[in-house]
Amino acid sequence: MLEDFFLETVALDDENDQVIILDQTLLPLREEYVRLTTAEQIWVAINNLQVRGAPAIGIAAAMGIYVCVKREAKKNCADLNNFFYETKNYLASSRPTAVNLFWALDEMEKAFNSGNEKIEALREAAVKIKNDDIAVCKAIGTHGAALLKNNMGILTHCNAGSLATARYGTALAPIYAAAEQGVKGIRVYADETRPLLQGARLTAYELHRAGLDVTLICDNMASAVMQQGWVQAVFVGCDRVAANGDTANKIGTSGVAILAAAYGIPFYVCAPRSTIDFSCSSGSDITIEERSPSEVTHKWYAHPMAPEGVKVYNPAFDVTPQKYITAFITERGVIFPPFEKKIHQLK
Amino acid sequence: MLEDFFLETVALDDENDQVIILDQTLLPLREEYVRLTTAEQIWVAINNLQVRGAPAIGIAAAMGIYVCVKREAKKNCADLNNFFYETKNYLASSRPTAVNLFWALDEMEKAFNSGNEKIEALREAAVKIKNDDIAVCKAIGTHGAALLKNNMGILTHCNAGSLATARYGTALAPIYAAAEQGVKGIRVYADETRPLLQGARLTAYELHRAGLDVTLICDNMASAVMQQGWVQAVFVGCDRVAANGDTANKIGTSGVAILAAAYGIPFYVCAPRSTIDFSCSSGSDITIEERSPSEVTHKWYAHPMAPEGVKVYNPAFDVTPQKYITAFITERGVIFPPFEKKIHQLK
Repeated sequence: MLEDFFLETVALDDENDQVIILDQTLLPLREEYVRLTTAEQIWVAINNLQVRGAPAIGIAAAMGIYVCVKREAKKNCADLNNFFYETKNYLASSRPTAVNLFWALDEMEKAFNSGNEKIEALREAAVKIKNDDIAVCKAIGTHGAALLKNNMGILTHCNAGSLATARYGTALAPIYAAAEQGVKGIRVYADETRPLLQGARLTAYELHRAGLDVTLICDNMASAVMQQGWVQAVFVGCDRVAANGDTANKIGTSGVAILAAAYGIPFYVCAPRSTIDFSCSSGSDITIEERSPSEVTHKWYAHPMAPEGVKVYNPAFDVTPQKYITAFITERGVIFPPFEKKIHQLK
Repeated sequence: MLEDFFLETVALDDENDQVIILDQTLLPLREEYVRLTTAEQIWVAINNLQVRGAPAIGIAAAMGIYVCVKREAKKNCADLNNFFYETKNYLASSRPTAVNLFWALDEMEKAFNSGNEKIEALREAAVKIKNDDIAVCKAIGTHGAALLKNNMGILTHCNAGSLATARYGTALAPIYAAAEQGVKGIRVYADETRPLLQGARLTAYELHRAGLDVTLICDNMASAVMQQGWVQAVFVGCDRVAANGDTANKIGTSGVAILAAAYGIPFYVCAPRSTIDFSCSSGSDITIEERSPSEVTHKWYAHPMAPEGVKVYNPAFDVTPQKYITAFITERGVIFPPFEKKIHQLK
């Protein structure tokens, strides 16, 4: 079973009131788990991408707010209420673009306000968010696998694999599912995904570890690979889908979508319903996180790779206009254009 | 004068029979010159990209074959002849894609066969190749600057600047010329250009050093920068132009061209006539160099960035179909489509 190859990304240690995460900044060198106890530790782990991927961030935040509130369970009701909302707002500030973070914290708020057994309700909600994610990713895999045939080449960007979720992944779920169903000869091209190299460090890592056929390329090689006829479909994940289908995902995704359109290659976005933000009418409503210049000029390197003091623009995401998207693969099935009405039906 | 900021990339030390090059693998950390004496040293310097950029490679090879043959001047005629052709073939094998290398060595062959004063003829030819390059780049700068207006944003890929040539550059020459003419507010976006980071290490370096406004981005950010309306033109260099206008240039260039077309941004290729290969009818005739996987997974990094043993595809160039090229900027002027006939007229 391929499942045996999946690393656990986020887990709850209920006995010790801790969230355990695989520290993804250490991959591919070391598989090391970190225990997070305080809200600050959880905030930093999300902000530094020790845990990353829209679904996994949501799970970590949900488990995080649970363990923090549980430790304060002896507070009186008003104080506990204040503490919950303080912690919620604080964790929500860890990253601005992926909507699953806000969605998961909203789910936790509903649980917190659902009755008297607040702590137990939070625990159940956090566990349910994780279990639901596994089921959702599995369903995305099944729907997406129906689009795959023997000997297809698949290009993917960033990591929307098992490491970005509780299991299976979103964009990689169809590839795992197809492999399990006996589809042969699937080749995956993994964009390395600068500056944080999630493609090289994580996607190439998890596919290689699972024994699948993966070839690592630099982001700027996607066009050459497509030009040679090696790619029959692109699968990516997403961090936020607007009501009209415009999609925020890892920086570079919009470029891949435009290339796919130019080469006549279908471009699929694998999107759990929790990633749809019905309050955003289009991509222009989505806040794009900008990160430190040093991620581009210094990070990972033995010495700086750019002249000191040079200006750097480092957006973590971009918006792919819906016109470049062939279909969304959700846990409810595959959605083809026109998107707006069909996305609304998922509400 | 901006000229004061240009580093000398390749020089001849006639007294010591050496070629002096700026070791570009050490930038942006150190400006260090290396003296090359033997054909092997020159081959390695070109192959390792210590000297790089199609025009600069041509100059280094020309000066290289001159100093090598000069040292053997006392050989009899037949032996010297053999030595010349051996050295020529050997240096021509240092890199396969940039045509200037072969063109410059062919120019040296003509000089070698032009009369009895073979050594002096070689010296004159090598010096002329360098001086002509300076004049050609200056003319490209003048023609290209006419396309620039105040406050334009220019995106460039790889380094086709003064470091890739004897002076001025090809793609950056219009930007330097416009700055000298008093055009204000030009902003340059430099793709970092993985895996060898010529954009970060060289383009950002030389523009920053010259006091121009440059912003470094990762290759996968070009689409986001264009989407925001920050780019009014793309300027790139080239390594080989086929007779129909298809253009080989640094890997990633074809992707930038497709993005520019999608966003309605003009895409200019700055091409000395020596870069046109009339023997290639189209891009499919151009040999594309593939380089070591370790450039993608290990080079520059403090530790490996991909799982051990993963497959890597690492082409150094790609071919931009001529339909995506708005115009070629040559030393003779700007050429708009249809290209085939107009390129033929440059023969």
